[in-house]
Amino acid sequence: MYQQRLECLSRQELEGLQLKRLRCVLAHIKEKNPTYHQRLGSPEPEDIGSLKDIQQFPFLTKDDLREAYPFGLACGHKDEFVRFHMSSGTTGTPVINPFTRTDVEQWSEIMARCLSAAGLTHRDILQITPGFGLFNGGFGFHYGAERIGCFVIPIGPGRTLMQLKFMKDFGTTALAGISSYPLRIIEVAREEGFDFRQTKLRVGIFGAEVWSDEMRTFIEKEMGIETFDIIGMTETGGVGLGIDCQDHSGIHVWEDHYLVEIIDPETGEVVPNGTEGEMVVTTLTREGLPLIRYRTRDITRVLSRSRCACGRTHLRIARIKGRTDDMLKVKGVNFYPRQIEEILMRHPEILPNYLITIGKVAGKDQVEVSVESSRLDESLKQRLEEEIYNFLGFHVEVKLLNRGELPRGPGKAVRVRFLEKTSG
Amino acid sequence: MYQQRLECLSRQELEGLQLKRLRCVLAHIKEKNPTYHQRLGSPEPEDIGSLKDIQQFPFLTKDDLREAYPFGLACGHKDEFVRFHMSSGTTGTPVINPFTRTDVEQWSEIMARCLSAAGLTHRDILQITPGFGLFNGGFGFHYGAERIGCFVIPIGPGRTLMQLKFMKDFGTTALAGISSYPLRIIEVAREEGFDFRQTKLRVGIFGAEVWSDEMRTFIEKEMGIETFDIIGMTETGGVGLGIDCQDHSGIHVWEDHYLVEIIDPETGEVVPNGTEGEMVVTTLTREGLPLIRYRTRDITRVLSRSRCACGRTHLRIARIKGRTDDMLKVKGVNFYPRQIEEILMRHPEILPNYLITIGKVAGKDQVEVSVESSRLDESLKQRLEEEIYNFLGFHVEVKLLNRGELPRGPGKAVRVRFLEKTSG
Repeated sequence: MYQQRLECLSRQELEGLQLKRLRCVLAHIKEKNPTYHQRLGSPEPEDIGSLKDIQQFPFLTKDDLREAYPFGLACGHKDEFVRFHMSSGTTGTPVINPFTRTDVEQWSEIMARCLSAAGLTHRDILQITPGFGLFNGGFGFHYGAERIGCFVIPIGPGRTLMQLKFMKDFGTTALAGISSYPLRIIEVAREEGFDFRQTKLRVGIFGAEVWSDEMRTFIEKEMGIETFDIIGMTETGGVGLGIDCQDHSGIHVWEDHYLVEIIDPETGEVVPNGTEGEMVVTTLTREGLPLIRYRTRDITRVLSRSRCACGRTHLRIARIKGRTDDMLKVKGVNFYPRQIEEILMRHPEILPNYLITIGKVAGKDQVEVSVESSRLDESLKQRLEEEIYNFLGFHVEVKLLNRGELPRGPGKAVRVRFLEKTSG
Repeated sequence: MYQQRLECLSRQELEGLQLKRLRCVLAHIKEKNPTYHQRLGSPEPEDIGSLKDIQQFPFLTKDDLREAYPFGLACGHKDEFVRFHMSSGTTGTPVINPFTRTDVEQWSEIMARCLSAAGLTHRDILQITPGFGLFNGGFGFHYGAERIGCFVIPIGPGRTLMQLKFMKDFGTTALAGISSYPLRIIEVAREEGFDFRQTKLRVGIFGAEVWSDEMRTFIEKEMGIETFDIIGMTETGGVGLGIDCQDHSGIHVWEDHYLVEIIDPETGEVVPNGTEGEMVVTTLTREGLPLIRYRTRDITRVLSRSRCACGRTHLRIARIKGRTDDMLKVKGVNFYPRQIEEILMRHPEILPNYLITIGKVAGKDQVEVSVESSRLDESLKQRLEEEIYNFLGFHVEVKLLNRGELPRGPGKAVRVRFLEKTSG
């Protein structure tokens, strides 16, 4: 464990620390950004008597952060900032998260905890495939690895053949990436006759996209590795908000740094433990862009607040099911792409590339699922359609494609496409 | 100054330190890599009585480093390495430079000195445009800036419109880049009616490519900034080997970390002070890949070993004239692309995009220079041809092109092209 004592605080100690830090972050906002303080209703830090008092504050949304571009909600002067990262959103105004020196330290610390939770030590060779620069992924892994003393291969995204070559030449033991990238690596490895069993690769740490348990099993089996699901986003201060430990019994969120609530996305009410809802994050130790009740849009639920078999006491949540803005609504039925992925990936013939197309035929919503498969036969197609029908309650056309027929792009995988025009 | 005392040591102190450190680096090689030690003739560190004794060691070339891929000349175990950077060479085996934790510290220190020499403080906002990752440029500037406490915009290469937007939105005061990139920024700014005078930009730190004084004047005038020429390469441990100070009277090489010799590239003999030759670098403080007498292929000369007006005592060398492998030999005349650039850029009509084409007509070498110009007239063309004739002693065809006619690529600028076939 990277910080045994802090990672194993009793619940009482943890919540005491959270309360103290919540008051600190409110004092910090009050001192540094009067507009932000006013937005919260001008609270006096000492008036916060319990963690529940946080519910008096309004939510903060991604749009709020966008409207604040560049530094409307930032707390501090440019002199105090040492860097910023930016949301990778391709449309509209980006979200800018400015980091103070303390924020860089905080980030390095939680990332070191994450890598350590995944079993990494200074003896590991970590190949970092997320991008470096404005995107937070590359730097997050880099700074965490530097704390631990891993040998970092800062290769960044793409150049998959080189990724494989480096894995072999340098004896890579751990791979970090966005969760769809291992699929591409596996694909190229297959084309090249590359055998992961002949490498020293044993750990994969993936995140930034929703990936089903079935996809996870596929990656673990194909690469012969143990995978870890890491969460976090630019808004919360980058990757590293939490990760699952070697017990894989939920994602630990570092509660001394983050206060998590799960709310009903419709009503905004906090839901009971175990109920699914949207994760809302308050940062307890960030300086540049402290968040009070940020709506992450991630759908999850609390699994446990008790001590894990690994010894850590920090809150465990379920792996992310989807994002509220990824939710599809067709013929009155709400569902997430991940749920379709789960159905598809239960079949060993199915390859991990699929595309859900939502279009209209004669004014009515239609869903088509195109998926690559190693076997294109009518019975598999019918079986998939039946299973999806059992889940959604309406018919979805499944199209089986040969390996390589769906487009591959750089960056996050595109899993859903909307056709505006009538399609035949 | 970032390290007043170290940057202003007397010549005697400097050379004393160099001798001590030369013995240390030899001891380090002896301890960590017997093959490398043998390659040097198995020297005993204490037998080195003076800096001149270094001349007993063989040169190290880029090919030697390539043949050592990945860790043949590395000193240390993978456990001790925290990262590597890689030469950006597109052909053949790359050069891998593994960094220990101490190497990262050394690099950060010399980069902080460089940024400080360019007048940067924690109040500056530095937009870093070289790539992050395996290429050393981005990380070099990043780590140096972190030491000083600049506000870093880790934008990396490309996306020139966004570069301009950020300059304005964030109040960028300093720009770091490979030396051809400001040309592209200037070009896009002109298309967009972007006025650098309305920004806070005041400093540009450029390197990694040879750029003439005339190109430098062009960039300074167009952007309204002061520029600094920074040197260094993956092999020597990354950017930051040296930089010119605000007196611009030569490039200071950090002599407490690097021992520089200038040799005749033909004979390998050390040339007298002031004579042009190839720069040979010995690293005095690097652990992962210590270099003994590395031939950089950069052509320069010693300008001064005395105290500079800025107070620094470290060796000053002339700006890089070219690289031995860039040298062109046509009709028995040796010349560097930079020398043609100087002639072209003396004319205010000429734009900073040119391409030298070497081809054969009827078995004889022919040189053609294509260059963009804001005025395409016969008299300018004739004048350029005459000036080039006066320099080279043979006729070169000049082709004036409209703005934008020459191709622009990502990465380093292509200035020379060889046509194998007969051209008309």
